[in-house]
Amino acid sequence: MSLAFPFSAIVGQDTMKQALILTAIDPGLGGVLVFGDRGTGKSTAVRALAALLPPITAVKDCPVNSERPEDCPDWATVPDTDLVERPTPVVDLPLGVTEDRVTGALDIERALTKGEKAFEPGLLARANRGYLYIDEVNLLEDHIVDLLLDVAQSGVNAVEREGLSIRHPARFVLVGSGNPEEGELRPQLLDRFGLSVEVASPTDIDERIEVVRRRDAFDMDREGFIAKWQPEDAKIRDAILAGRAALRKLEATDAILRDCATLAVALGADGLRGELTLLRAARALAAYEGDAAITRDHLATVAPLALSHRLRRDPLDEAGSTTRVTRTVAETFG
Amino acid sequence: MSLAFPFSAIVGQDTMKQALILTAIDPGLGGVLVFGDRGTGKSTAVRALAALLPPITAVKDCPVNSERPEDCPDWATVPDTDLVERPTPVVDLPLGVTEDRVTGALDIERALTKGEKAFEPGLLARANRGYLYIDEVNLLEDHIVDLLLDVAQSGVNAVEREGLSIRHPARFVLVGSGNPEEGELRPQLLDRFGLSVEVASPTDIDERIEVVRRRDAFDMDREGFIAKWQPEDAKIRDAILAGRAALRKLEATDAILRDCATLAVALGADGLRGELTLLRAARALAAYEGDAAITRDHLATVAPLALSHRLRRDPLDEAGSTTRVTRTVAETFG
Amino acid sequence: MSLAFPFSAIVGQDTMKQALILTAIDPGLGGVLVFGDRGTGKSTAVRALAALLPPITAVKDCPVNSERPEDCPDWATVPDTDLVERPTPVVDLPLGVTEDRVTGALDIERALTKGEKAFEPGLLARANRGYLYIDEVNLLEDHIVDLLLDVAQSGVNAVEREGLSIRHPARFVLVGSGNPEEGELRPQLLDRFGLSVEVASPTDIDERIEVVRRRDAFDMDREGFIAKWQPEDAKIRDAILAGRAALRKLEATDAILRDCATLAVALGADGLRGELTLLRAARALAAYEGDAAITRDHLATVAPLALSHRLRRDPLDEAGSTTRVTRTVAETFG
Amino acid sequence: MSLAFPFSAIVGQDTMKQALILTAIDPGLGGVLVFGDRGTGKSTAVRALAALLPPITAVKDCPVNSERPEDCPDWATVPDTDLVERPTPVVDLPLGVTEDRVTGALDIERALTKGEKAFEPGLLARANRGYLYIDEVNLLEDHIVDLLLDVAQSGVNAVEREGLSIRHPARFVLVGSGNPEEGELRPQLLDRFGLSVEVASPTDIDERIEVVRRRDAFDMDREGFIAKWQPEDAKIRDAILAGRAALRKLEATDAILRDCATLAVALGADGLRGELTLLRAARALAAYEGDAAITRDHLATVAPLALSHRLRRDPLDEAGSTTRVTRTVAETFG
Amino acid sequence: MSLAFPFSAIVGQDTMKQALILTAIDPGLGGVLVFGDRGTGKSTAVRALAALLPPITAVKDCPVNSERPEDCPDWATVPDTDLVERPTPVVDLPLGVTEDRVTGALDIERALTKGEKAFEPGLLARANRGYLYIDEVNLLEDHIVDLLLDVAQSGVNAVEREGLSIRHPARFVLVGSGNPEEGELRPQLLDRFGLSVEVASPTDIDERIEVVRRRDAFDMDREGFIAKWQPEDAKIRDAILAGRAALRKLEATDAILRDCATLAVALGADGLRGELTLLRAARALAAYEGDAAITRDHLATVAPLALSHRLRRDPLDEAGSTTRVTRTVAETFG
Amino acid sequence: MSLAFPFSAIVGQDTMKQALILTAIDPGLGGVLVFGDRGTGKSTAVRALAALLPPITAVKDCPVNSERPEDCPDWATVPDTDLVERPTPVVDLPLGVTEDRVTGALDIERALTKGEKAFEPGLLARANRGYLYIDEVNLLEDHIVDLLLDVAQSGVNAVEREGLSIRHPARFVLVGSGNPEEGELRPQLLDRFGLSVEVASPTDIDERIEVVRRRDAFDMDREGFIAKWQPEDAKIRDAILAGRAALRKLEATDAILRDCATLAVALGADGLRGELTLLRAARALAAYEGDAAITRDHLATVAPLALSHRLRRDPLDEAGSTTRVTRTVAETFG
Repeated sequence: MSLAFPFSAIVGQDTMKQALILTAIDPGLGGVLVFGDRGTGKSTAVRALAALLPPITAVKDCPVNSERPEDCPDWATVPDTDLVERPTPVVDLPLGVTEDRVTGALDIERALTKGEKAFEPGLLARANRGYLYIDEVNLLEDHIVDLLLDVAQSGVNAVEREGLSIRHPARFVLVGSGNPEEGELRPQLLDRFGLSVEVASPTDIDERIEVVRRRDAFDMDREGFIAKWQPEDAKIRDAILAGRAALRKLEATDAILRDCATLAVALGADGLRGELTLLRAARALAAYEGDAAITRDHLATVAPLALSHRLRRDPLDEAGSTTRVTRTVAETFG
Repeated sequence: MSLAFPFSAIVGQDTMKQALILTAIDPGLGGVLVFGDRGTGKSTAVRALAALLPPITAVKDCPVNSERPEDCPDWATVPDTDLVERPTPVVDLPLGVTEDRVTGALDIERALTKGEKAFEPGLLARANRGYLYIDEVNLLEDHIVDLLLDVAQSGVNAVEREGLSIRHPARFVLVGSGNPEEGELRPQLLDRFGLSVEVASPTDIDERIEVVRRRDAFDMDREGFIAKWQPEDAKIRDAILAGRAALRKLEATDAILRDCATLAVALGADGLRGELTLLRAARALAAYEGDAAITRDHLATVAPLALSHRLRRDPLDEAGSTTRVTRTVAETFG
Repeated sequence: MSLAFPFSAIVGQDTMKQALILTAIDPGLGGVLVFGDRGTGKSTAVRALAALLPPITAVKDCPVNSERPEDCPDWATVPDTDLVERPTPVVDLPLGVTEDRVTGALDIERALTKGEKAFEPGLLARANRGYLYIDEVNLLEDHIVDLLLDVAQSGVNAVEREGLSIRHPARFVLVGSGNPEEGELRPQLLDRFGLSVEVASPTDIDERIEVVRRRDAFDMDREGFIAKWQPEDAKIRDAILAGRAALRKLEATDAILRDCATLAVALGADGLRGELTLLRAARALAAYEGDAAITRDHLATVAPLALSHRLRRDPLDEAGSTTRVTRTVAETFG
Repeated sequence: MSLAFPFSAIVGQDTMKQALILTAIDPGLGGVLVFGDRGTGKSTAVRALAALLPPITAVKDCPVNSERPEDCPDWATVPDTDLVERPTPVVDLPLGVTEDRVTGALDIERALTKGEKAFEPGLLARANRGYLYIDEVNLLEDHIVDLLLDVAQSGVNAVEREGLSIRHPARFVLVGSGNPEEGELRPQLLDRFGLSVEVASPTDIDERIEVVRRRDAFDMDREGFIAKWQPEDAKIRDAILAGRAALRKLEATDAILRDCATLAVALGADGLRGELTLLRAARALAAYEGDAAITRDHLATVAPLALSHRLRRDPLDEAGSTTRVTRTVAETFG
Repeated sequence: MSLAFPFSAIVGQDTMKQALILTAIDPGLGGVLVFGDRGTGKSTAVRALAALLPPITAVKDCPVNSERPEDCPDWATVPDTDLVERPTPVVDLPLGVTEDRVTGALDIERALTKGEKAFEPGLLARANRGYLYIDEVNLLEDHIVDLLLDVAQSGVNAVEREGLSIRHPARFVLVGSGNPEEGELRPQLLDRFGLSVEVASPTDIDERIEVVRRRDAFDMDREGFIAKWQPEDAKIRDAILAGRAALRKLEATDAILRDCATLAVALGADGLRGELTLLRAARALAAYEGDAAITRDHLATVAPLALSHRLRRDPLDEAGSTTRVTRTVAETFG
Repeated sequence: MSLAFPFSAIVGQDTMKQALILTAIDPGLGGVLVFGDRGTGKSTAVRALAALLPPITAVKDCPVNSERPEDCPDWATVPDTDLVERPTPVVDLPLGVTEDRVTGALDIERALTKGEKAFEPGLLARANRGYLYIDEVNLLEDHIVDLLLDVAQSGVNAVEREGLSIRHPARFVLVGSGNPEEGELRPQLLDRFGLSVEVASPTDIDERIEVVRRRDAFDMDREGFIAKWQPEDAKIRDAILAGRAALRKLEATDAILRDCATLAVALGADGLRGELTLLRAARALAAYEGDAAITRDHLATVAPLALSHRLRRDPLDEAGSTTRVTRTVAETFG
């Protein structure tokens, strides 16, 4: 993991990078869904984000990375309560993972050796305060995706199985990558992701050459390549930290609230999750860019991220969903 | 749970709120089914109800929250029989819950360590005297919904498995939320829910803005927002307590009984559960509103809640079921 | 269970009540299948029967309620062989029951703690000499229904599983309720039920009002309501006891035997189970009514119960099966 | 079981009774398949056969009923090797039987308590030298029927599972009853049954009356009824014993062999199992009837039993298979 | 097994008998698939082969019948390494065999009693250097057939399961019988069998009579019948032993190689397995017949065995596959 | 394995042999998929490669064949850390392998005997630094293929199951053989294989004869045949070793990068994996052939290997994919 491809060395793919950065500023945005064919660098980008994110302070032996010893769950044994700095957790859901390892389950070893019914935390515990990445989310069974979205939204992992009745904090950003060719997600699942982006292979020859050149250079000499791009990565990290600090100072004015609602209604987005996410994403963008207030420009920039996966299909409108969002933004804001 | 969105701060959705309040006054009404797309605040409302409900008095260590030590089940160990006040239990059926955790099952730990066959109560025990909430009830398998409705109706959880033969009280209000787009419930299951309501996202721009404004305010400062709405919540709680006390004094006159039957027959509702629920819901409403008798106004108000999910489909009548109920009420009561 | 709705307080539904009473007089009649929509009081009636039935004398610790210590099965430990009076067992097959709890199975506790292979009896043992009630028999898997009918018919529960080879008496009346809308039973299963009745919600407004009135009165004050109807229930119980005593004295005359065969042939009922059941049901009715002989009137009364579920479908005859039976009885007996 | 309906008291059904008797004389005939609707007395007849059959001499503790101690399998513990008389074993395959109980399996108790891998024999062991009865053979899964036919044919039960590698004699007559309405057996399975008979409810009123009269008499007083028919049963038993002794003396002449082949070819029966069974069934019949040689009359009598389930369907010939066999016999033997 | 029907007493079926003999001479031919309806004597022939085959020399306690102690697998305990003569192993795959018994698996007894992870060899070990017979190979699941063919071809059984990682020699001739009416084998599986033959019931009356006569004689007096045919069987056995010795001396001349290739190409057989098998089968036949060289006559005789199951279906050629092979051989060899 | 058919004795099939050699030079190329009917020598070629590959240096007891003791995983017990030479591991995925043996799993023996939760490495560990071969990859379930490709690409095996949370290096070349007739691989899986080749049986008679001649010679005398071809095999091995050393010196010039991109775009290959693989395969070929720079000739040679399985189907172009690649290469390079 320490030898990931540098985030800043990714050629193009600006929207995807922006969406990932916004979740680093406001983890409450509700996750990102990245659509695109295989070979478009989705996993590379998410894995690159891991190397870029600022570290967190956590209780050393706390299974859920709590910031204070008193926040560690009561079912956990925490021998060492010292505070340590560690990388933002990025948990990768491996293929073939069993549900018990996702949610945690009965600790077999303690059950066998001591006859005790103890809880062994799973990946959701480890992901607390960080990221949970699912490659090819559309290959997962619906009920697992549902479970992950549920926990991501409530911030609590509730386990009721094998005689266990456990609850622990599980606040994380869910990042899923999906390949539309391999089966679609149900609209209900789509709506529960905060942001979405679409990525594609570059069609410009020079851009393709640059991608292959950098990838080949990275494959031939990983350490050297990473060292070369470290300063660029550091700039992004600093901007994220500054953005986080600025976030709560950015109020939602009546005008901005009305703009959000007007856009959502004009686009026919179901429910209110769209405009709420639009508001929060615009605030995160303003914070990242160091602006003093949320503006229509921020809304216009993040509207495709927040709304394009929430549109109803319009059989009379053959434009892609991103185009429809952009066009409506232009019409609405005149 | 203690930081739930305040019940009284929910914008609109009056019918859903009314249905929930009625079950708080007469828990024997048979549960509520809330229909609507995702993002219409169904879960928020149910979780808000939790914070609003009056506390109950229960034996401290009793697994089924009994009011008196002699009512605790004989299979339970109850070291401390002191009476304590505690919040009305609201049990949330988490996704991926296994059937053994719903009904209770053999206590594996005691079986392994002591070779004893003891019962470990499940969520149905914990929900006794309270609420059991199922998000997306249509995603649960039919046999589980059936089981939950059975227990809710009989008030008894009977477990016959793994060599156990256990029975305990399980009186609770079942609240299910469903998304008609994700698959329908069988008519037989529908009929077993006492009340039903349909919710939708507001279409009025100002109402949408108000929803987002309050939600954003809540997200930015939960404690402050809750404190601000506490007085409104308290008013509702007091009215519920008063309504409960008044309930048994409200008799069903012959005229009201005839009105109930006439309405049910006019609407072609199968079985008698419709008119029985209509009567009880009207009584609960009268009690909540402090009225001295059940009137036709009460019947007219609750008729859509009690009857609209019990209508036969009428291929010649394209009106929605709520409209059909309202229209028939108007015709019948002249 | 002790607070069941009184049998005699059930409004209408005379045929269903009669069928249940007949099985109380001659448990060998082969069970009852009650058809009808939800909400027509099927479960209420069966549960009411439980409170009405006369008690039995049984060996105190005998798992199969044997009348004499020497009839307790040899695999059972029976510390206390005193004879006690107890209510006629009415076993309710809960939803989600596992097959091992129905038939009995290896006693896990003794296997784990003592390494012994002991039999733990199931619901079939408990139902011996009583009733086994299945709500919504059409939701059970065919092989379980088949198993239950097999045991009900042979009166013996044979268990061959997990290294066990056990046999014990299991004589009970199987009562199943079914909803024709939720899937039909195979004709082969139908034929194995002795009697069948169809129930429907009353369509008469006054009868509906009376049902709701009594139900509401019962819900508001259970003890008071039950006390009020106790004398009526006692009358029925006494008649059942008298009928049982009279049963064996009622011979099947040649004329009656010929009537049974003629009716069955005229109706095209397959097999001979129909006329055998017709004879026994008529005898039970004669005994219940205190008559000295089985007459054509008895046959005419019980013919719909005994034959209507055994008719072949006749595509040219659109009448319901009960009507067809009644009509044929009229034609045959002139 | 000791109170079964007497074999000789069965009204009519002569063909079925004859087929069962033939298997008692030559158990190598390959089993009987009895077709017919429910309620035609199939199970009654097979259970009646149990009470009729002559006893066998067997080693007392031998799990496979061997006639000599040295024939008991080496995996068995046989504390008592005395020879005892016992009823011909008739094993009833109960519904829901698990495959391990059919074939035998690892003895869990000994594995758990002593850590030994011992074999616990199943129903096939118990059926050795007797009968195995399957009610509704068409409801069993094909692979189990296949397994049973395989063992019945080879006379050896080979168990290869759970680390066991066991073989023991399992010579028994397989009797299956099937209801053509509930699904057909594959032709391949049909062919492996030696004989088949079809039974139907009597259509003659007087015969139906006699059936119901005897059944009612039996139900009212089992012991008395059985005692009354015992002499008739004894006559049949004696004839069976005499027939067994005569069997090996009846040679197959060339003329008879040619008759068998001619009949089978004329009927288009596939394979040679048909004519081989025809020969053996005729020999058994001749033996039962005390005749000195196998004649064309014997062939004519048993031909429908041996051949009617082996015919290819002939779309141009609408006659039933028994009729086709009888007609062909008449044409062939002129 | 010792009382099997004598191989030489089988009436007709010469091709099947020839194919079986060829595999006894060159076990590397790749197995035989015997097609035909039930009742055509397939199993009888294979079981007869068992009694006919010459014995092998093997290490006494070696689980894979190795010829030398040093060839016994290292996971095996081999207390007695004396060399003994034993019949060529013929392992019969019983119906219902579990995969662990086929491949071998963890030894449960040793795991339970000693906590050791030892390998318990399965049927594939026992079949080493012999025959593995599958009755009705088309009823087995594809993945098991695939596994058996894989092991048969590689001569090695590789087990990777339950923490075991075991390899042992498993060289055997796979003989499968199949009934084309019960489902076809996939072409890919067909191709992996070396030889195939089709059998049918004789249609000649005299031949049928002879079959039934011999079978009846065998059933009436097994020992006598076997003794009578022993000399015939011994002749075949001697010829097999002589053929084995001669096999390696028979070189494939260029002309013969070209004939093989020409035939395979002319018939459109996919892959090269066809001509390789053709060559080896012809060599085995030449060896069995004591000829000094492989000739076109040998090729012509075995071509239907080696090629008919490898033809592509030709929609324009309605001739059976054997006919097509014979015709092409005639055309090619002029 | 030591008696595999020699790589250099394979007749024809040059493309397949070339692809296998390229992966031996640059294992990072991403595996090879070999398409073709059964009987075309796919498995033979891969098994032959095993005997040809140069040995590796590894820590003796290291379960993942690490080159240095400090690289052995921390969950492993490594008693002997001496460095030894051993053959390049070639792991064969046997049919019926269970997922736990692929990824590794809980060590049952240690769990049972010591109550410890230890990891038992699987085939992925054993394959580290070598080859993993799957015969008939299209018969494996998609999720297993996905898992294998995932691990092959990341070089890390992450196991999250049964309470284990393990990671270890698993760098191997995945070689899959597939039969297009038995079901296709999903395009997404295709794209993840680096190279692909198609093989077919030779249609030239002389070539077929030569194949059969060599195979027959090999079958008749394995040792002699292998010895004869050893020198040819050694030449290839030496060239592979030289190629590996030369690999990193071969830079990707701008012209070559542009050629790669131009070809990929001209062929409409999705994603960038195609041109990246094209570049690396050309570099490996240049290294193998001892050339000083990557040239257009190298690109032209490997383009069909790297690109033909990545083309979109073109309904207007009926040429095979290899032809389309070759044609486009010719057009592009003029």
